[in-house]
Amino acid sequence: MNGTELPTCELPTWDDIEAAAARIEGFALRTPVMPGRGLLDALVGTTLFFKCENLQRVGAFKFRGAMNAVQQLTAAELARGVATHSSGNHAAAVALAARLRGARAHVVMPEGSAAAKVEAVRAYGAEVTFCANTQQAREDALAQLVARTGASFVHPYDDWRVVCGAGTAAREFLAEVPDLDMLLTPVGGGGLASGSALTCKLRPGRHPTFVAVEPEMADDAARSLATGVLQPQLAPRTIADGLRTALSERTFAVLRTHADGIVTVSEAEIVAAMRLLWNRLNLVVEPSAAVPFAALLAGRLPVAGKRVGIVLTGGNVDLDALPWATTAAGVAVAAR
Amino acid sequence: MNGTELPTCELPTWDDIEAAAARIEGFALRTPVMPGRGLLDALVGTTLFFKCENLQRVGAFKFRGAMNAVQQLTAAELARGVATHSSGNHAAAVALAARLRGARAHVVMPEGSAAAKVEAVRAYGAEVTFCANTQQAREDALAQLVARTGASFVHPYDDWRVVCGAGTAAREFLAEVPDLDMLLTPVGGGGLASGSALTCKLRPGRHPTFVAVEPEMADDAARSLATGVLQPQLAPRTIADGLRTALSERTFAVLRTHADGIVTVSEAEIVAAMRLLWNRLNLVVEPSAAVPFAALLAGRLPVAGKRVGIVLTGGNVDLDALPWATTAAGVAVAAR
Repeated sequence: MNGTELPTCELPTWDDIEAAAARIEGFALRTPVMPGRGLLDALVGTTLFFKCENLQRVGAFKFRGAMNAVQQLTAAELARGVATHSSGNHAAAVALAARLRGARAHVVMPEGSAAAKVEAVRAYGAEVTFCANTQQAREDALAQLVARTGASFVHPYDDWRVVCGAGTAAREFLAEVPDLDMLLTPVGGGGLASGSALTCKLRPGRHPTFVAVEPEMADDAARSLATGVLQPQLAPRTIADGLRTALSERTFAVLRTHADGIVTVSEAEIVAAMRLLWNRLNLVVEPSAAVPFAALLAGRLPVAGKRVGIVLTGGNVDLDALPWATTAAGVAVAAR
Repeated sequence: MNGTELPTCELPTWDDIEAAAARIEGFALRTPVMPGRGLLDALVGTTLFFKCENLQRVGAFKFRGAMNAVQQLTAAELARGVATHSSGNHAAAVALAARLRGARAHVVMPEGSAAAKVEAVRAYGAEVTFCANTQQAREDALAQLVARTGASFVHPYDDWRVVCGAGTAAREFLAEVPDLDMLLTPVGGGGLASGSALTCKLRPGRHPTFVAVEPEMADDAARSLATGVLQPQLAPRTIADGLRTALSERTFAVLRTHADGIVTVSEAEIVAAMRLLWNRLNLVVEPSAAVPFAALLAGRLPVAGKRVGIVLTGGNVDLDALPWATTAAGVAVAAR
């Protein structure tokens, strides 16, 4: 898988994950693993570990996949630039990965994307093109862009380079905490989930259980795995903005083969979990990142006494629109 | 300094810092150091490193000093418990340190302490006694408590055990990034600042410049160092609630000897710095922790091209009273 794309039906191997890790070494940060601290562990009756990809470059695991893809472009391809469509973290990831290799980045973003995410993409030097917030509009805008510039398309998840790059987070996590019983990630398009499932099941040594967690309001992956047939995403209205996308043939194929389970959580459960993580871990995590911990808090998985790892996927939120913000506190500062 | 307290006039040595590090090993976390990422570095023209003590146990560096003190108590002393007065992080630190050694903790907290901090102290099993929010009321309540229980008092900062414990954060930081040109911490009572100054100047190898940063609204340390005479804290009204305390004879003596400078920052500068750290580092830091970065943003230190380290001291904030929260966003969730 050096530079050429595998056919959809052929799953990546452990060597592909290792090669991705080597390609992004020195570019991606080796993010810290934080223990759950007594208070969080006690809440769910497990020993928790959090892989802090919210502290990754661009504030999300997405940098790993984007960097692994850009590293495989030829000099001629780099000269024509890199393109993608994304509502957020993948856009910033492609922008930074391209910049680090001296390439131009073009990003198609849906109108209504979080202001902080648009700002971040532009800060990394990418050119942003807005489109209507439908899958078709995104694909059309991207196709025009690629036709005009000759840029190389790096899909947010339906790309083995991106899947294998994402899998390096779980690889690092298990290298640091090799005796995890279970690994949890959120699932949206399935790049991280399938990369993590591959890592859990193909790595040498112990193979932890891998479970993906999904918002009820964007449950295409749960329906796809339950029926054995790839299902469409139906009008996702979840606060977990990173998880509104649907599985692809590639990511579905991996999860059918390697995921041990999938559970869903409600919107209220996501917000409560997010707030607890902010409060107890002192980490800014976005709603999508709180989805796996929400499943534990809701008692949806048999984890009593186990060692459970969670990938905290990202931390890019609009600080002016936190889901629990209800009061004007600025005026209270001087009186505290 | 094994178990017995030095006289005030005799400053701790490097061996004392090393002994503190050995005592808290396995109890305190080795917190991660995060780089400033391109975006923060570019803002201040330096290469930044952040020692994430907001990710320490109890969410603050304070655990180091409390644990170092409790580790030096005899079995008979532990049996009578540990006592302190604190508006926040030191209280939680003493509560957890005591619990880890099977001792009871008694904490005097001023009325009006942040709800999250009171809750955390109680969650660690400590007994909380409230008092009026004056230094005299705190000391009276503590004296009564100690008379009644025979508990050992661990002062929040005017205690060499606490100073040396706090200094272990800078020791770890410089072990990981040995070529720092400058280290910055906030200064309130001066426990962290003096422990860090001792570490910078006494450690073997390179000695970085040490500068303390203080809110203008609680500037006793700046006035004390400027005049050479310990000055009182005058009605501190800063949002940086960890920095409203005043230097003691002990911490003043260290800073006079070892600090290279002290600068102050305004309330608006603190809030702006705090928000930037949340946004760019994805870390929850409390206002006190943002004070050194505020000084860099304000251009108050000559750091162009330098390698600068900042200790992010803590991350315990009331998420319902963020200084920039101005809108009710809960209702916007479903529409995002």
